[in-house]
Amino acid sequence: MSEKESKVITSRDVDFAQWYTDLCIKAELVDYSSVKGCMIIRPYGYAIWENIQEELNQRFKESGHENVYMPLFIPESLLNKEKEHVEGFAPEVAWVTHGGLEELPERLCVRPTSETLFCEHFANIIKSYRDLPKLYNQWCSVVRWEKTTRPFLRSREFLWQEGHTVHQSAEEAKEETLKMLHVYGDFLEEILAIPVIRGEKTEKEKFAGAEKTYTVEAMMYNGVALQSGTSHYFGDGFARAFHMTYLDKDNQEKYMFQTSWGMTTRVIGAMIMTHSDDRGLVLPPNIAPIKVVIVPIGKSDTEVLERSYEIARNLKVKGISVKVDDSEKSPGFRFAENEMRGIPLRIEIGPRDLERDVCVFARRDTLEKYEVSLSSVIPEVVKMLSEIQNSMYQKAKLRRDSMIHTASTEEEMNEIIESMSGFVFAPWCGNMECEVEVKEKYGITSRCIPLDGDSTTGKCIVCGKPAKHHVYFGKQY
Amino acid sequence: MSEKESKVITSRDVDFAQWYTDLCIKAELVDYSSVKGCMIIRPYGYAIWENIQEELNQRFKESGHENVYMPLFIPESLLNKEKEHVEGFAPEVAWVTHGGLEELPERLCVRPTSETLFCEHFANIIKSYRDLPKLYNQWCSVVRWEKTTRPFLRSREFLWQEGHTVHQSAEEAKEETLKMLHVYGDFLEEILAIPVIRGEKTEKEKFAGAEKTYTVEAMMYNGVALQSGTSHYFGDGFARAFHMTYLDKDNQEKYMFQTSWGMTTRVIGAMIMTHSDDRGLVLPPNIAPIKVVIVPIGKSDTEVLERSYEIARNLKVKGISVKVDDSEKSPGFRFAENEMRGIPLRIEIGPRDLERDVCVFARRDTLEKYEVSLSSVIPEVVKMLSEIQNSMYQKAKLRRDSMIHTASTEEEMNEIIESMSGFVFAPWCGNMECEVEVKEKYGITSRCIPLDGDSTTGKCIVCGKPAKHHVYFGKQY
Repeated sequence: MSEKESKVITSRDVDFAQWYTDLCIKAELVDYSSVKGCMIIRPYGYAIWENIQEELNQRFKESGHENVYMPLFIPESLLNKEKEHVEGFAPEVAWVTHGGLEELPERLCVRPTSETLFCEHFANIIKSYRDLPKLYNQWCSVVRWEKTTRPFLRSREFLWQEGHTVHQSAEEAKEETLKMLHVYGDFLEEILAIPVIRGEKTEKEKFAGAEKTYTVEAMMYNGVALQSGTSHYFGDGFARAFHMTYLDKDNQEKYMFQTSWGMTTRVIGAMIMTHSDDRGLVLPPNIAPIKVVIVPIGKSDTEVLERSYEIARNLKVKGISVKVDDSEKSPGFRFAENEMRGIPLRIEIGPRDLERDVCVFARRDTLEKYEVSLSSVIPEVVKMLSEIQNSMYQKAKLRRDSMIHTASTEEEMNEIIESMSGFVFAPWCGNMECEVEVKEKYGITSRCIPLDGDSTTGKCIVCGKPAKHHVYFGKQY
Repeated sequence: MSEKESKVITSRDVDFAQWYTDLCIKAELVDYSSVKGCMIIRPYGYAIWENIQEELNQRFKESGHENVYMPLFIPESLLNKEKEHVEGFAPEVAWVTHGGLEELPERLCVRPTSETLFCEHFANIIKSYRDLPKLYNQWCSVVRWEKTTRPFLRSREFLWQEGHTVHQSAEEAKEETLKMLHVYGDFLEEILAIPVIRGEKTEKEKFAGAEKTYTVEAMMYNGVALQSGTSHYFGDGFARAFHMTYLDKDNQEKYMFQTSWGMTTRVIGAMIMTHSDDRGLVLPPNIAPIKVVIVPIGKSDTEVLERSYEIARNLKVKGISVKVDDSEKSPGFRFAENEMRGIPLRIEIGPRDLERDVCVFARRDTLEKYEVSLSSVIPEVVKMLSEIQNSMYQKAKLRRDSMIHTASTEEEMNEIIESMSGFVFAPWCGNMECEVEVKEKYGITSRCIPLDGDSTTGKCIVCGKPAKHHVYFGKQY
């Protein structure tokens, strides 16, 4: 990256889509290849994903889940076993037809999701109520043959985790579905600093084969919605299609109840579009691969370098990841480069600072600078990182809240859509026809029925009949 | 698993292959599915793989390597760019021909290995000598369309890591190749307790497209060789095929020098076939997901249970993974079940032990039992785990060494092969014809030319011409 290139990204307010793509490339998160529609995740992007994996794995394992690995391929006949499921996925899967030099007797699809494989496996290994529940998770890549693609947001191959669990009772499975929704919600809010609405998808928007789909919905800087994680309750639908039974205490053969839940590399896109700016990436400290960068100024000065490395050592002892950027480039260029990479806190140290026993803290999120005494630099870093994390969340939440608009009538909704971006929160009768009409007329879809929503007394904005729910509507990625 | 089933595995000395498969299934490492030739890695098997990943990741990162993720697919034209490479892999790849409902304009193979993708990427991102070296690694699954398959050893899909690096000089790349070979060798010996021979593959056995292939070769309990990791030096062969150039300090456009190296889930198979026995799995403490199992006997006794959990808590504080097995089953059944799972150390505690302030240690590797004072149980566990680890390695090494047979003539080799299993160490002239003759006549292949081998003064066992190397020959998995 030359000095000139590093500064050139499109402005976020001029062309949001171009800004996003520029940033993904310039911050060295991803690259393209000759594999159309797929992305290369570069070291910096992958380090973020590894941190996400570590955080989620910890939460999954603490709640009793175990990791497994299922085959990459699904035979066509297995995919076809659950009718709604195959109808949902068949149009967008990649098919393997040849192995080596021979044509296969049966086509294999590259997994778009692994419900069918888990179902077959559960049916195979579970005999008795003593074998239940099984709480499994898988980290892998999946493939969906999308027509238009964008880094992290929509890609023919993406990385994800998919949880799959089976239970004795519907109640227990429903509890699991909601528990994992909250694991996602808490992770997004606490770690990625993304405020989310936790809710239920409408019948129209739910997962192919699910009885209920729950979602955590985030709003991007430009007001567009991004579904950031979903959790599905399957009832015993798949169990019936796959003959997943067990012998219960009462000696009766019974069907299992099932859930699945997933989060993908897409949340990296969500994080970028929530926090970043025209200088590049802004990473929340809780997920940043490098939390602090120290930039020595006037590097010929041995003491400056020594003090820089001393601070770095002391931060590492505290478990804080840190880099000393003592490259040959000018301070200004190094500032810009580290800003592009979204490192939450920069510490600048020059000879004149040393004379006065201070250094300068520069926050990536607000771009504010502070003078800090060298004697208290370690505790001040700890405090500052926590302050940045909280403040990024609060800022995102304030903006998100200011972009949620309440409408009681179709006219109000129309006005909002024409003049503002963001979500519309409006009463709805619960009928799919009205939902479809909103989509066709206004280009927005129902995002979710919030979990904490009151039963409403309003009237459906489309048909005027008594409303069943208040629903968030919005444009979606 | 019923009480009866848990005991039934074929004896290792009666039918080694069946013993191996029985063990993989009964220890719940893997399961089959309707996806022919692929395996399901169950929680216990995957936990072992996660520990392997963690150990290797730490070693890779300490030596400056970064993780990335490349696409799952490779366009046919990209695979075709390096002639030897495509000839080596094309006969065994799976081909995607359709995406969604449409036929693809160009077939995509599911990656059998990712050299070609890394080459394209390196050519794309590296402009100057300042961008070198790049030290990358990828964790993923790869596909090779094998005809006969066995859990972990040979499977149409398997998990692995593939390292790919590029360097300014041939020397630096060669150094990297050997460095990573030793990372593998050390990992296998220190963590999996598998003694290995570090050596170079002959021209005939090297990787498709490599100038040199190094290998770590292990010998299984039955004397058969298992290649447990390989490291390749590519010279600038791929660089020329993919136009991977950079601008050097002297302002000249130059080709990069390249390496790749890989280790797979196969090493789990190697570990099983090195250490396990008729009671099931035997895991080295350094890789075991659960290092200690505590079996309270006479569980109605509250004190027995309390003391069991107290020991477990104290072990956890020390970072030692432990499980209390207080299930309803009989002690004998629980012993057998935990032996099948290969947990290195079992602690038995009963009411009569408590009266005398002792407990019983039972080693999984030797099946020996010791009485240990409850007051010193924690330090004794630490000591015992280290003792088990060392002793497993020593035992495997003694057996391996006793099964390496030196031959100076073809007659000697013939005699050894007819009467003994293991490796034959013999002088060879270096000509491929003689190597091929050994394979065709005796069904054994050259495993490697050892790194620490002396230049030999003997004569080739086939043609009688002056020998160039001493080579290990053996049957291979």
